[in-house]
Amino acid sequence: MDTLKIKNLIRELSQLDYQAMYLNDFLLTWEKSDQEIQATFLVADILRGLRAQNVSCRLFDSGLGISLFRDQSTRTRFSFSSACNLLGLEVQDLDEGKSQVAHGETVRETANMVSFMADVIGIRDDMYIGKGNTYMREVSEAVQQGYLEGVLEQRPSLVNLQCDIDHPTQSMADMLHLIHHFGGADNLKGKKLAMSWAYSPSYGKPLSVPQGVIGLMTRFGMEVTLASPEGYEVMPEVEAVAEVNAAKGGGKFSKTNSMAEAFTDAHVVYPKSWAPFSAMEKRTNLYGEGDFDGIKTLEKELLGQNANFKDWECTESLMAKTHQGSALYMHCLPADITGVSCKEGEVAASVFDRYRKPMYMEASYKPYIIAAMILLSKAKFPADTLNAMLTAGNTRIR
Amino acid sequence: MDTLKIKNLIRELSQLDYQAMYLNDFLLTWEKSDQEIQATFLVADILRGLRAQNVSCRLFDSGLGISLFRDQSTRTRFSFSSACNLLGLEVQDLDEGKSQVAHGETVRETANMVSFMADVIGIRDDMYIGKGNTYMREVSEAVQQGYLEGVLEQRPSLVNLQCDIDHPTQSMADMLHLIHHFGGADNLKGKKLAMSWAYSPSYGKPLSVPQGVIGLMTRFGMEVTLASPEGYEVMPEVEAVAEVNAAKGGGKFSKTNSMAEAFTDAHVVYPKSWAPFSAMEKRTNLYGEGDFDGIKTLEKELLGQNANFKDWECTESLMAKTHQGSALYMHCLPADITGVSCKEGEVAASVFDRYRKPMYMEASYKPYIIAAMILLSKAKFPADTLNAMLTAGNTRIR
Amino acid sequence: MDTLKIKNLIRELSQLDYQAMYLNDFLLTWEKSDQEIQATFLVADILRGLRAQNVSCRLFDSGLGISLFRDQSTRTRFSFSSACNLLGLEVQDLDEGKSQVAHGETVRETANMVSFMADVIGIRDDMYIGKGNTYMREVSEAVQQGYLEGVLEQRPSLVNLQCDIDHPTQSMADMLHLIHHFGGADNLKGKKLAMSWAYSPSYGKPLSVPQGVIGLMTRFGMEVTLASPEGYEVMPEVEAVAEVNAAKGGGKFSKTNSMAEAFTDAHVVYPKSWAPFSAMEKRTNLYGEGDFDGIKTLEKELLGQNANFKDWECTESLMAKTHQGSALYMHCLPADITGVSCKEGEVAASVFDRYRKPMYMEASYKPYIIAAMILLSKAKFPADTLNAMLTAGNTRIR
Repeated sequence: MDTLKIKNLIRELSQLDYQAMYLNDFLLTWEKSDQEIQATFLVADILRGLRAQNVSCRLFDSGLGISLFRDQSTRTRFSFSSACNLLGLEVQDLDEGKSQVAHGETVRETANMVSFMADVIGIRDDMYIGKGNTYMREVSEAVQQGYLEGVLEQRPSLVNLQCDIDHPTQSMADMLHLIHHFGGADNLKGKKLAMSWAYSPSYGKPLSVPQGVIGLMTRFGMEVTLASPEGYEVMPEVEAVAEVNAAKGGGKFSKTNSMAEAFTDAHVVYPKSWAPFSAMEKRTNLYGEGDFDGIKTLEKELLGQNANFKDWECTESLMAKTHQGSALYMHCLPADITGVSCKEGEVAASVFDRYRKPMYMEASYKPYIIAAMILLSKAKFPADTLNAMLTAGNTRIR
Repeated sequence: MDTLKIKNLIRELSQLDYQAMYLNDFLLTWEKSDQEIQATFLVADILRGLRAQNVSCRLFDSGLGISLFRDQSTRTRFSFSSACNLLGLEVQDLDEGKSQVAHGETVRETANMVSFMADVIGIRDDMYIGKGNTYMREVSEAVQQGYLEGVLEQRPSLVNLQCDIDHPTQSMADMLHLIHHFGGADNLKGKKLAMSWAYSPSYGKPLSVPQGVIGLMTRFGMEVTLASPEGYEVMPEVEAVAEVNAAKGGGKFSKTNSMAEAFTDAHVVYPKSWAPFSAMEKRTNLYGEGDFDGIKTLEKELLGQNANFKDWECTESLMAKTHQGSALYMHCLPADITGVSCKEGEVAASVFDRYRKPMYMEASYKPYIIAAMILLSKAKFPADTLNAMLTAGNTRIR
Repeated sequence: MDTLKIKNLIRELSQLDYQAMYLNDFLLTWEKSDQEIQATFLVADILRGLRAQNVSCRLFDSGLGISLFRDQSTRTRFSFSSACNLLGLEVQDLDEGKSQVAHGETVRETANMVSFMADVIGIRDDMYIGKGNTYMREVSEAVQQGYLEGVLEQRPSLVNLQCDIDHPTQSMADMLHLIHHFGGADNLKGKKLAMSWAYSPSYGKPLSVPQGVIGLMTRFGMEVTLASPEGYEVMPEVEAVAEVNAAKGGGKFSKTNSMAEAFTDAHVVYPKSWAPFSAMEKRTNLYGEGDFDGIKTLEKELLGQNANFKDWECTESLMAKTHQGSALYMHCLPADITGVSCKEGEVAASVFDRYRKPMYMEASYKPYIIAAMILLSKAKFPADTLNAMLTAGNTRIR
């Protein structure tokens, strides 16, 4: 991307309305306006362009990005670190094991105690239905209050790094990948995307990836089909979001219990395992009751249930049914690859291998999406700030 | 805080004598002169003022702050990270679990091996009487020698992040909170502070908080009362320090076995659990002998002993006895709150809730206190350095 | 080191040919030309000189250094962190425990996923013969491909922080220590170095230290003797490297089963325990077969075997046999010191104590060696870059 192209993107950005993102959180894509979503993509592309030109993107001279992961993670953790580093923030992990959070601290207290110099807080909390997003909002209110009371010098903004409802940094990276792959957002209109359940021998993968995808991709005029075996529904509230978005955006949202049907003529396929919503709710309740034996029993049941659907695999013959036999295959990684990472999994090894390059590219947008979310929440005049970076032209590697 | 006010504070600072702090450690408040203590408060306020004005406080272009925690911690860990980051240092944790420290390294060796690019080392080691502070002095001597021998390019300075004797970053933050709360250090003269033991269902909380408070607050002409049940004495050496300081500073230091007596007419109350000194000494000896069964037995005994003093709780009726019924309640957090974090604890929920805002404010001074300690030990001409920061006016968020 | 001296070193550097190091890895010293090795030493010295003069050595405005340790470490971990920090990179640990690496990710995938903003990847993987170096090469190919495919904006270069074959950051630091100790590389010609096995009560220390030393020190015209009990051979491939290097460099390489013989007239002694190569190979195979009982049995056998050679200890009487009774004693630390860290170990306490200062100095070169490796792989025109740093004279501590 050359300087002129970057300048044009900045000009485009300057014409959008995204002021409400300033000092605000990014928790669910459907809470953001179309222009805010578009601004996020633009800033991500601009930052990537600047970095590729070896231009420093340091918005911050110093400052902390707090990462709070309640579930294991490689790529989201590294994406958050990369985004923070790109902008000049140092990451500090809030490891609840290492900390004193256990003995009797409220969310409000912890949120303030870690935020004295925090510019951003990234949270991943996707294990329990009804918990993750709620927790993020509690943290958000706590730091807002701390800021208003003068306890905090700045109001850290939150980035949802995956919750029980949405996984906005993933779905936004996925979408930016689609935009570039198809040569612009306009070209996505009418394109068919199959968000499909797929078999995995592991248990309890979060719902937030399929939910994030149907909640976001329907906004761009895409025809999104959610395919799953019976009993593998996602949260009904998010299906409702997808329907509203499809109606507004000129796209479609439909459901099916046939993977083959969803794949037929699809331009994009996203086959991925997830746990059934109702089971996840049951699990949350068991957890609430401290019934760990019940949880174990439930897990066994679910693995047994999964095993009924081993034919939900993204095979070559299914891929052949897609548009011109060459739909774009997507995955948030890591995937369960048949014969590679497990005996029977989400995807055939030959399919996975063929799409390795675009999949890595898909993943590569995440750090820039996160950086864009941070920048839009912390820079008062983002277009001016980016323009100043370009003009100053300070080199990243000297 | 406006620019003029910051300038005045810098001018005030420049008139103090604190040259002995350069390349020196901060281990016990009572090893520092009154002017050094005052300089620390001034620098903390100046740094906070600069940051609130979005002025970069980077003393360092690069460099490491080593954190060595031998006990769990959230707020002290984050305060140290924040302070380092504010000044431009990156934190590197010396996790003794992850490292090879176990198999046969001396303190001297480890201290040098982690200090090749270390500007500051923050240590928390508060578990065993006679050990923590001693360990810090061993580290200090080791790096001093390494520096003199040319092994180290710089002499890292140590900050005591809590030891068996003192908790200077806590007591200094507490004191700065008092200074601001009462509108200046002069207004603290004659004010009554009750440092009181309180019941907790947990065992073995360090003595360094009450010791730090009686060692420091007595210097400001305050009338400090240390209240505890019989058998919950603190280290006699520190009581002696408090007495000397009270005599020199025009304050008072007294002891009582009645919480109510201590609270009567108090302007400030600090009710907090700690372990009895003699029991901690016994525990250290058992530890030295490797008698872990003996330690378990001792812990049970102590919890039983604690249970005799459940009425040592900071209740509304006790608060009503304080000066105008509205003493400032303080706590280093996290607190054991009755009916919230435990069945019976240090403080009634309604009292704790009412003082949440000032308590968070109290905590918010700690990063600036630590940053001030670092700056005073690493900048040769601190007032000039701060003045240069203000004049340069480099923005923290660009 | 004064400015003139630094300038001279930079001029010396500018006359060497090391362009092949740009965007390249540092995996084995014997893959590097003599001029590349020399350039690394020069850059290490220049960086140390600049830092001692309080000149900022930030090559990077932002960027990540990924550390991937598959074995515990203190000094190498801190050396890598220090090197990264000196140059302006933030370290991000890839903790395979915390990450999702376990469930089915390929090396290629992980390597790309952690490298979106990675400028350098430091890897320590020394536990299994045939594995560590191989793994590094897989990572290297993966990121090279990711870079060529546009997935990665930059090609991170790898630094071998210890593998099954070599420990280049250690041997290079050792060598730089020798160069300074003997007043220049030229003075090393004909000097005798005894790389000797020594008894340790612990099991399975890596072979990479002795292998690194015989592979590197033979290049400088030194007469290197590898001493070990029968059965404690190192990898034959590395012995072959040592022989070739000795022949080319005008030095000697010989082997003996007598510690005393190796020490006789030696100018430098490096007594250190390691595991027998053949046993390590057996262990790797058992590991491959998942035969953990077999591994335990093997470990017992090896400890028993070790115990036959308790007289392989660096004692005062052995030291007396060395050149003028005052050979330079070296160790990569931590050492097993008789009567200090173990009952019977590698070295007598009095010998170890006497050489503490030079040993710490030896260790102090490692961060600079690593920084030099990074700089030579990431700066296109290293001499110009260093000259610009010197001329700009930005202070590290302001």
